[in-house]
Amino acid sequence: MTKQELFNEICAKKSFLCTGIDPEINKLPMHLPKTIDALLEFNKQIIRHTRKYSVAYKFNTAFFEQYGSKGWEVLEESAKFVPDNVFTIADAKRGDIGNTSSMYAKAFFETMNFDAITVSPYMGEDSLRPFLEFKDKWVIVLALTSNPGAKDFQYFEHNGVRLFEKVLDSVSKWGNENNLMFVTGATKTEEFEQIRKIVPDNFLLVPGVGAQGGSLNQVAQKGINSQLGLLVNSSRGIIYAGNGEDYTEKAEKAAQFLQNQMEPWVDAVCSY
Amino acid sequence: MTKQELFNEICAKKSFLCTGIDPEINKLPMHLPKTIDALLEFNKQIIRHTRKYSVAYKFNTAFFEQYGSKGWEVLEESAKFVPDNVFTIADAKRGDIGNTSSMYAKAFFETMNFDAITVSPYMGEDSLRPFLEFKDKWVIVLALTSNPGAKDFQYFEHNGVRLFEKVLDSVSKWGNENNLMFVTGATKTEEFEQIRKIVPDNFLLVPGVGAQGGSLNQVAQKGINSQLGLLVNSSRGIIYAGNGEDYTEKAEKAAQFLQNQMEPWVDAVCSY
Repeated sequence: MTKQELFNEICAKKSFLCTGIDPEINKLPMHLPKTIDALLEFNKQIIRHTRKYSVAYKFNTAFFEQYGSKGWEVLEESAKFVPDNVFTIADAKRGDIGNTSSMYAKAFFETMNFDAITVSPYMGEDSLRPFLEFKDKWVIVLALTSNPGAKDFQYFEHNGVRLFEKVLDSVSKWGNENNLMFVTGATKTEEFEQIRKIVPDNFLLVPGVGAQGGSLNQVAQKGINSQLGLLVNSSRGIIYAGNGEDYTEKAEKAAQFLQNQMEPWVDAVCSY
Repeated sequence: MTKQELFNEICAKKSFLCTGIDPEINKLPMHLPKTIDALLEFNKQIIRHTRKYSVAYKFNTAFFEQYGSKGWEVLEESAKFVPDNVFTIADAKRGDIGNTSSMYAKAFFETMNFDAITVSPYMGEDSLRPFLEFKDKWVIVLALTSNPGAKDFQYFEHNGVRLFEKVLDSVSKWGNENNLMFVTGATKTEEFEQIRKIVPDNFLLVPGVGAQGGSLNQVAQKGINSQLGLLVNSSRGIIYAGNGEDYTEKAEKAAQFLQNQMEPWVDAVCSY
């Protein structure tokens, strides 16, 4: 998917919501059997009932890998169920030496046809390069993450430049705004102004709204750029909004609630 | 597997060789069909013919994921084929926020019963913690990698401390020598003395001998500690040693060649 196509979808849906599909068998709604087949059906129902409000779906590979090859099948089937005009992200946090990263790129961009994959920057340029060679595919690089451990290494500083700033600065030169996004946590909005100075034009994938405590309005106020430039993710807040037979309605309402909050921000950008 | 059990295996085999299983269908020996089933059989044959000389097997998940859920099945089956007394490593380079890392730990330690998983340190303590809670399981954290991109961020320096040193220092305090190893590339032996000052007792997983250009003797000379403390990996040099019907013999000889070079180093440690 191109940046323009993503922007068009944002304006059409008046939303920059990314719904995170992080399912667990033992958290399925009470009335559903606790099986891997029920998990796939759950994912499809969640997608069916939230796609009106979601411009992207993020699949966290860990949640599928815990169920082995059967889980990997469910990942493939669930991702296929997302409509073509909606952006799909494999939240895989991969990254390895060049020839290995080529395999990951093949796995997620060709075998599974995701639009994007999240990647850790630790191993440097040759670990990201193979992902950037795919046309109309995206690499989403971890910069400043939403979790407590972000402080351990991401703020490590050299001459006033912190590691996450160095990552933003270096990585943004290896690609461009049409194939690179960055992960910047919603719990770190105090840094968004500085982040936007380094990467004014790239999309930011922002997790951490909801369960992790980030504020949507703070994120929007500080992160939006001329082509919106944000995908804000909510996982648990949507997929586990309900636990009964009405779980699809509850998920739909949770997605709609976030879309409603996003609408004025989108209007301000798309009406130009 | 415990550290003592690993050390016993090293002394018994007079080897600290880790054979890397990174197979590709289009690189299978000429006479084999280019199918996913042949790939599994290839892996089993390689393991059967190298296990006499290998104390560990490292499975690079990328090579399996490129084939989707079928590839993931082959990963599961191949790993099961390794004898119980041999150390198994999922070279997965995972790492995510705490609740997600728990899923990865479950995937690799429970569902697939690997002894160890490689993890990227970028997201900090809570991204590693869930892996460290498993008894007799190991986390192998990227410190100084063997690839060219290692220079991009791993040498980023604060007050004379480089990022990979900071990673070694911080991470080694989150676990101990019985559940933590570090990845240090064979192409970076000029740093091994410094690395051993920070983590004298931890095992090091050392890729980069062979195809990437690292020297086994340099690695041994600078990296060995009182319980040997090294797993040196070779992947392509072993599994692709031959391309004909004698590929199993060629792989066996390649593994034996490395074991022979390792033997005097092991003798010097195990005879104490």
